[in-house]
Amino acid sequence: MIIQLEKGIEKNKVDSIQTTLSKLKFSVNPVTTQFEDYLVCIGKTEFDIREIGHLQGVKDVHRVSDNYKLVSNKWKTKNTIIDLGDDVVIGNGSTSIMAGPCSVESEEQMESITKHLIKNNIRIMRGGVYKPRSSPYAFRGLGIDGLKMMHALCKPRGIKIITEVMQVSQIEEMYPYVDVFQVGARNSQNFNLLDALGGLDKPVLIKRGVSGTIEELLYSAEYVFSKGNERLMLCERGIRTFETIYRNTFDINAIQVLKDKTHLPVIADPSHGVGIRDYVSKLALASVIAGADGVIYEVHEKPEEALSDGQQTLNFMESDLLVQKLNKLLSFT
Amino acid sequence: MIIQLEKGIEKNKVDSIQTTLSKLKFSVNPVTTQFEDYLVCIGKTEFDIREIGHLQGVKDVHRVSDNYKLVSNKWKTKNTIIDLGDDVVIGNGSTSIMAGPCSVESEEQMESITKHLIKNNIRIMRGGVYKPRSSPYAFRGLGIDGLKMMHALCKPRGIKIITEVMQVSQIEEMYPYVDVFQVGARNSQNFNLLDALGGLDKPVLIKRGVSGTIEELLYSAEYVFSKGNERLMLCERGIRTFETIYRNTFDINAIQVLKDKTHLPVIADPSHGVGIRDYVSKLALASVIAGADGVIYEVHEKPEEALSDGQQTLNFMESDLLVQKLNKLLSFT
Amino acid sequence: MIIQLEKGIEKNKVDSIQTTLSKLKFSVNPVTTQFEDYLVCIGKTEFDIREIGHLQGVKDVHRVSDNYKLVSNKWKTKNTIIDLGDDVVIGNGSTSIMAGPCSVESEEQMESITKHLIKNNIRIMRGGVYKPRSSPYAFRGLGIDGLKMMHALCKPRGIKIITEVMQVSQIEEMYPYVDVFQVGARNSQNFNLLDALGGLDKPVLIKRGVSGTIEELLYSAEYVFSKGNERLMLCERGIRTFETIYRNTFDINAIQVLKDKTHLPVIADPSHGVGIRDYVSKLALASVIAGADGVIYEVHEKPEEALSDGQQTLNFMESDLLVQKLNKLLSFT
Amino acid sequence: MIIQLEKGIEKNKVDSIQTTLSKLKFSVNPVTTQFEDYLVCIGKTEFDIREIGHLQGVKDVHRVSDNYKLVSNKWKTKNTIIDLGDDVVIGNGSTSIMAGPCSVESEEQMESITKHLIKNNIRIMRGGVYKPRSSPYAFRGLGIDGLKMMHALCKPRGIKIITEVMQVSQIEEMYPYVDVFQVGARNSQNFNLLDALGGLDKPVLIKRGVSGTIEELLYSAEYVFSKGNERLMLCERGIRTFETIYRNTFDINAIQVLKDKTHLPVIADPSHGVGIRDYVSKLALASVIAGADGVIYEVHEKPEEALSDGQQTLNFMESDLLVQKLNKLLSFT
Repeated sequence: MIIQLEKGIEKNKVDSIQTTLSKLKFSVNPVTTQFEDYLVCIGKTEFDIREIGHLQGVKDVHRVSDNYKLVSNKWKTKNTIIDLGDDVVIGNGSTSIMAGPCSVESEEQMESITKHLIKNNIRIMRGGVYKPRSSPYAFRGLGIDGLKMMHALCKPRGIKIITEVMQVSQIEEMYPYVDVFQVGARNSQNFNLLDALGGLDKPVLIKRGVSGTIEELLYSAEYVFSKGNERLMLCERGIRTFETIYRNTFDINAIQVLKDKTHLPVIADPSHGVGIRDYVSKLALASVIAGADGVIYEVHEKPEEALSDGQQTLNFMESDLLVQKLNKLLSFT
Repeated sequence: MIIQLEKGIEKNKVDSIQTTLSKLKFSVNPVTTQFEDYLVCIGKTEFDIREIGHLQGVKDVHRVSDNYKLVSNKWKTKNTIIDLGDDVVIGNGSTSIMAGPCSVESEEQMESITKHLIKNNIRIMRGGVYKPRSSPYAFRGLGIDGLKMMHALCKPRGIKIITEVMQVSQIEEMYPYVDVFQVGARNSQNFNLLDALGGLDKPVLIKRGVSGTIEELLYSAEYVFSKGNERLMLCERGIRTFETIYRNTFDINAIQVLKDKTHLPVIADPSHGVGIRDYVSKLALASVIAGADGVIYEVHEKPEEALSDGQQTLNFMESDLLVQKLNKLLSFT
Repeated sequence: MIIQLEKGIEKNKVDSIQTTLSKLKFSVNPVTTQFEDYLVCIGKTEFDIREIGHLQGVKDVHRVSDNYKLVSNKWKTKNTIIDLGDDVVIGNGSTSIMAGPCSVESEEQMESITKHLIKNNIRIMRGGVYKPRSSPYAFRGLGIDGLKMMHALCKPRGIKIITEVMQVSQIEEMYPYVDVFQVGARNSQNFNLLDALGGLDKPVLIKRGVSGTIEELLYSAEYVFSKGNERLMLCERGIRTFETIYRNTFDINAIQVLKDKTHLPVIADPSHGVGIRDYVSKLALASVIAGADGVIYEVHEKPEEALSDGQQTLNFMESDLLVQKLNKLLSFT
Repeated sequence: MIIQLEKGIEKNKVDSIQTTLSKLKFSVNPVTTQFEDYLVCIGKTEFDIREIGHLQGVKDVHRVSDNYKLVSNKWKTKNTIIDLGDDVVIGNGSTSIMAGPCSVESEEQMESITKHLIKNNIRIMRGGVYKPRSSPYAFRGLGIDGLKMMHALCKPRGIKIITEVMQVSQIEEMYPYVDVFQVGARNSQNFNLLDALGGLDKPVLIKRGVSGTIEELLYSAEYVFSKGNERLMLCERGIRTFETIYRNTFDINAIQVLKDKTHLPVIADPSHGVGIRDYVSKLALASVIAGADGVIYEVHEKPEEALSDGQQTLNFMESDLLVQKLNKLLSFT
């Protein structure tokens, strides 16, 4: 059960509600977000909802049978819309495009990619500066300097930045330069990180784990929301299966299931979703047909020279064409 | 290596070619299909192709590095087109639609579904009469009588029939009533069945195994082709993964990979691919965007009363709508 | 619910029982095996068992909540013991050893393997003569001649033969030479084959599918039992997962689960279970510790020259050592 | 390639070696551990090893073809032995037993478990105080207070403590009370955490990810070693597959593969490996037969009252019996 409290409710009223809930054997989790105050109640499923609805300070009460409560659309039937400013909005029915290199590599690279984004009216740049890598000897990103470089180019042009944060201690330093914090697949159950991002007032995109279930992804989102951050989106990026002919198995079913169970925007990552450049564009289009609110893909002036993920990165021409098709598709859906 | 032989080549010329190939340490598999004579040669990869190309009776020689040879598009760059007669053609750039119930159940059901197909100009009916079921106590289909019933309705209306054959001994009886023999997911490595279907002059659709790799599917197709039947198509129908929130994980990547590696038509089965009715239509559309040559889906006048697979079966209204969208999509792609 | 009928029960009594069951809305499946007559009843779970227990001709009545009924140990609490004659018994508390080459290749090979088995007092020889192979161009076994060769050597020495049957049409020809029919992993849901083997009076070993669930394996066994053959055993041989460093992931948990849910003997196949020779022996021992009633493994005089599966086949010295350890382990468990 | 440097080597000698390596186009990673100084060189595979071996300050040079270098046994053929003090040693040929509750819950619980350990001469206690939980509303552990409580009981009795660390910021506070830091399955690719643990002088146990490959586990260990900590062990705890009848699929093959590829001790976690109490003990024994250096399992006075993981936790009697069998098994292997 989720209880929405009245704005500015006095503490003694909250106490009184909590007392009632305790008597009803509910375990109560108070949640304060950017927008509202809630009590998330875990406990029995059969009770008279009016017992709670009439209490002073209660704005609304919702039964939510799902175990993930706040991110469920059982209570919040209106979809979450995330406004990044400068008319960059995610989840409003348009197809959001986030594009950029796997890793931020150099000033030259950033300049060429910025031009490409502007040309195609892409308003959100992706680009990793802290790179999780299986091997300790691989390139691990330019770090905060890379992010500042990115920011210097994007900020004046109204381009928003999404980039991966790998641990709690990076958040503070990254904060001024980031528009959307991305939680990577390997960290999708890094609960301390999720907790910390829940305390921010900037949006968070959570990638599904390499073998994370859809339910686990929703729980991870629940971590962030229940710590206070409602500005959340989810990302399908392919799962690990027995098939080895491509990098990951893109779970297109997940797009529909997530849209069906949650009010959060759902983004598709076709680059990691298949891991082979030739297949990225059609996969992006298919994801949008399936209901994705946006796509995030890797693009590089010279993919064959990229420091990471070159094999799944579009070149500029391929990216131009993809954007055209995504736009054309808008009229279809 | 694949050697295409001249039409009507004399036996002594074939012998002579085989002698040369044996000297070159190739293992040779002679293949005679409805259309052509081939020698499929397994062996060394480095040799002077001209040594073979100039031999009498050799029409063409192709190096094929893939282990599946005949179904590879390394040698046959033109896509295979399957003409079922009455202007029903698969693989020619249109989107083939195959629709019908999971199981043939009754005359009334068949009549209503036939009307639905005609209304929507769907030219191929699917419908199971031999049903593979996990439990021996479940409904196992009407058998040959069901097929005859289906045929009596479809034949006069120019509707083609695709239905599953479960074992070699059923082929002869089914033959007069079937336009496309379907090999089910559980039989996709039933090599005796594949061998037998290779001897027919009717088309075959092979479903990918529940956990079959893409390569295994191509090998299974190679079985049929190498026994003499070129009129083949492949079907992606979802794979088994760790995710349990839906029935199967539809592998949309496989559509692109298969189209990229083979000259055979690729059909998507969104009904089994997700197993939940509400998600079938968008999945069908996404598959076509990804490159599928057609879709095969389950439809029933009253899905909730279907003897099998009701939970993933469209009703007539949903199917009407899907056909409209599939047609609209043709102008997009 | 399973009803055991009295031996030699008159037809009119069976009819009368069935009438009662129909009134109770049960769907009834009569089953006659080598040993007993049963009625397997699918239907409601709440009823007064005494209503049936007192009927004439009813020997015993058992509620069985599992969906697989006859192979469940909810009703048959005594483990199934399979006597192959000549004091070769499976499931009686000893560790049954089945060993031999992947494929029967030649008379010389068969002679050397026979000596090896005699030396180690191994009483059951495995050896494939019909080989399911992914590629149509691979070696597919010697067929019935190989089986006759095997039989000529084994029969006079009291060695029993287990070999794979791939399709219904092979059964009759193979029958005189086979002691245990093996259903391979790719055929574990070939229901027509299972039906046919249910009609035999010779034992059947069913391998788990490459990605078959434990429940599916039990259902497959139910097919055979419900067609009349109680002399059945199950085999864990590794499943398909995301891990690629070895051939299959041996599911050691399955050994315990199967022993816990069924009265049938459970055999482990460590050769396919890991697919790498160096790991086979310890895996065999671990399986026995986990509760397996026996092991089936591949052994060859010169594994490096084997026509198939050489990489997972023990040589004679390794096999000698394994048998010693298996015997030693008996005193531990 | 791994270069072992002489103890106390002068900096100018190291510089000179590095210069030579740079000329040979190697990328060089200097590693200083508790025990030795190394240079881990990534680069070409063909070169004359003597060019390096004769350089001043070089103690030994090893070619290592594996991508994980320091944890490979291609260069360190002697197994790593981890001495925790008070005669508690892991990896020396004995079977190490680590046992205790899933979560530290209370003083009473800790006292009873301590007695149980002493009774059975179990020298290492496991017990979680920071609990990773899918849902933010679940019990997340007692935190540092729980750890101190554990320590107060264990320290005077010579019992060593292994417990999970979830993030970098916890390390400092936990350090005085921990003998082995455990990295949980969800954090097995939390590279920042691995880096930080690499800087410690206390041993680390890394659990395999829920769907981590064996190679990824070895890479994660390489992170810790390459940051300076050689006192490392690995843990197989079951992987995620399509099978749902139990919690995880214990990968018994992994035990052998890990022992075959690395010099690090390998521990089995049968509790998570199957997730069902009745199956834990045999799985523990099977793991030891397969080569595990030890087992870590959950035990509780009253598993049915445990705050977490009760369904897979042994009671004291079951644990007594398991220890007896593990000891008996020592004489077998």
